[in-house]
Amino acid sequence: MAFCNSRHLLSSAVRGLSASPSSDLVRRSWQRLPKFYSASTLSSSEPTGAPLSAANISIEKTVAPKKKLSPSKLVFGHTFTDHMVQIPWNATDGWLTPKILPYQNLSLDPACCVFHYAFECFEGMKAYKDSNGNIRLFRPDKNMARMNKTAARICLPTFDHDAFIKIIAELAKLDSDWIPSERGYSLYIRPTLIGTQASLGVGPPQSALLYVIMSPVGPYYPTGFKAVKLEATDYAIRAWPKGVGDRKLGANYAPAILPQQMAASRGFQQNLWLFGDEGYITEVGTMNMFLVFKQPDGKFELVTAPLDGTILEGVTRDSILALARERFDKDKWVISERKATIKEVADHASAGTLVEAFGAGTAAVVSPIKEISWRGQPIPIPLQPGKETGPVAEQMAKWIAEIQYGEVEHPWSVLLE
Amino acid sequence: MAFCNSRHLLSSAVRGLSASPSSDLVRRSWQRLPKFYSASTLSSSEPTGAPLSAANISIEKTVAPKKKLSPSKLVFGHTFTDHMVQIPWNATDGWLTPKILPYQNLSLDPACCVFHYAFECFEGMKAYKDSNGNIRLFRPDKNMARMNKTAARICLPTFDHDAFIKIIAELAKLDSDWIPSERGYSLYIRPTLIGTQASLGVGPPQSALLYVIMSPVGPYYPTGFKAVKLEATDYAIRAWPKGVGDRKLGANYAPAILPQQMAASRGFQQNLWLFGDEGYITEVGTMNMFLVFKQPDGKFELVTAPLDGTILEGVTRDSILALARERFDKDKWVISERKATIKEVADHASAGTLVEAFGAGTAAVVSPIKEISWRGQPIPIPLQPGKETGPVAEQMAKWIAEIQYGEVEHPWSVLLE
Repeated sequence: MAFCNSRHLLSSAVRGLSASPSSDLVRRSWQRLPKFYSASTLSSSEPTGAPLSAANISIEKTVAPKKKLSPSKLVFGHTFTDHMVQIPWNATDGWLTPKILPYQNLSLDPACCVFHYAFECFEGMKAYKDSNGNIRLFRPDKNMARMNKTAARICLPTFDHDAFIKIIAELAKLDSDWIPSERGYSLYIRPTLIGTQASLGVGPPQSALLYVIMSPVGPYYPTGFKAVKLEATDYAIRAWPKGVGDRKLGANYAPAILPQQMAASRGFQQNLWLFGDEGYITEVGTMNMFLVFKQPDGKFELVTAPLDGTILEGVTRDSILALARERFDKDKWVISERKATIKEVADHASAGTLVEAFGAGTAAVVSPIKEISWRGQPIPIPLQPGKETGPVAEQMAKWIAEIQYGEVEHPWSVLLE
Repeated sequence: MAFCNSRHLLSSAVRGLSASPSSDLVRRSWQRLPKFYSASTLSSSEPTGAPLSAANISIEKTVAPKKKLSPSKLVFGHTFTDHMVQIPWNATDGWLTPKILPYQNLSLDPACCVFHYAFECFEGMKAYKDSNGNIRLFRPDKNMARMNKTAARICLPTFDHDAFIKIIAELAKLDSDWIPSERGYSLYIRPTLIGTQASLGVGPPQSALLYVIMSPVGPYYPTGFKAVKLEATDYAIRAWPKGVGDRKLGANYAPAILPQQMAASRGFQQNLWLFGDEGYITEVGTMNMFLVFKQPDGKFELVTAPLDGTILEGVTRDSILALARERFDKDKWVISERKATIKEVADHASAGTLVEAFGAGTAAVVSPIKEISWRGQPIPIPLQPGKETGPVAEQMAKWIAEIQYGEVEHPWSVLLE
């Protein structure tokens, strides 16, 4: 493959580095720089071109509004609102004027690097209507920070968090009629960033498009929780140390479907990703995984995998950990970000000390689990009597929904002016 | 994320499985199937819909042919021919009529799964004009087999090899004026398969587009070989056992750019991907890696990494191994597909028994290497006096070009009728 010219390579590397000061990859690589190459040399170049700004956003309203589906007929991610955001970027000019346009197809050269080399990343976030009819976002700063970290990892341009939240807010307000008022409904917001350079050399994209589409969604459990069965996957792995499993890249998703399908073909709703000979529990399908164990001293332990680079840094994961640390009785609970193995789960099940398990993610918030199949043997997981959920998942779903719908005041809920 | 309905999941899983009988992933997972689930149940469903056929291809010629660049001005992958192939697929109808159309933008819904979840894979192959003006492909069967294996891994539809080669041949013949006649020039052919389903649930695509674009390319070394310097990368890892590093997925490329950029920013043309604490040598940038060592018994060893799932199954790699096994003196040469470590390379360099190193891939065929930087220290690699290549790379480039341009008869060179 042809190389890009080294001037660009350097400036883009620097852009990625300086835009993502918290990147583990970059920190590690800096530590390993040969002594003759100083960090100050790298940081002397800044991103070129205009920064992203919400000041001069242009709005073209649709002349043909779509007919809205009855809320009860919504299927996740199938129905989209009337408008979208498009913000082009190129290496010379930086971020161009943000545009709100009628929802429409993208017209792209078939050589664009998004089609060949997976220069693409996204976020999943939601807007909620509170009882006063106001629109609220849930922790949008977390999504923006993660999207920038992800973009920097694949040499796509980073952007100002606040400016992009303002632009998303404009879109949400314009299409606010699309957010059903009923509790449990929300507007799923999908910011997406793709590389648009139309040439086949493998290198950092010189042009990109940041866009936002929105989809009204119904409650994940319209008739109450439904606990799921998982199949533990050890014949394929999702992510590895020094890889990109902690970034919300398109690249992490397509390869994950076949193991999910194979689990589904054997009657399991999701697969559970194990890692290594030890069988470490990492993620469940596209969600983070939580377990509750009863310890010998009588305390309960809420366990989720640590942020070691192999799991997605979920916003719901972070919210559950924060709420548990703040609100659970400290005399009775230990909150652990640590590695747990499937063997440990099986042993707890045998000993009667496996209390609960659930997935956590933006779409479902929590997804209770009632069984894990491991090497053809079921590991049963308790549920509450007469319910399809354990108590922690139920409590977390309630606490988080109260914040999302503005029923309790909380800094995580951002009211759109 | 919403689940697809299980009927589809099953039929797609079966489609992926039966379409890819040689898939290691599938073989391994079959071996692990619980006993109550028999292989015959899985194989009872076949891919639905019409197979890919070249019989009724439709051709719409451009009315505005592009002006051709002077061959000396060609940059890899920047210039495209007048026409392209488009073949839509959907889960209900199967493969639709192949179309040859004027090269044009794709118009796609912004919700298409190619933009979000990297449902995309590609091939890189070349057409050559021989001295009689005929067009020749090089081992197209290998590209087709690899593309089907790759597609099956991410639940994209597979296709009949021969039909697709015929369609590609039609396109190459239509745009044959774009292939420069000069030795060293060729037509780079880029078959690409993308998922086009316009919804955000993470599942197997229900629609896809297979397309082909073509780019005339000049010689990789217009003024003779240029040996490159590599930086060994141990702070990031390209692929992992049980992962997808052996498939030609877009997903393997975007995450690989930043380490290449960092190497470039320190003056190295490419990075060398190491794996694990042992520092196993896997790939160089986007090429396979070859080493030549002198053994204690006086024999030479040609070494490349084994096909263990972490390296791409390169067509050039395979060709070099086959030619070496067939044409090298067996009393003097050992041909090894085995793991070698960077430490082993450094030790051979110190001992004076490191003979040569080069990358191998479709774009450059061979890429001689003159230095590897490992932890800030250079490992020098010999070149021939007065040349920027070692003898094996030079010999292989000559043998392969003779076959590609039809100067010697060989079954690898496929003459288009």
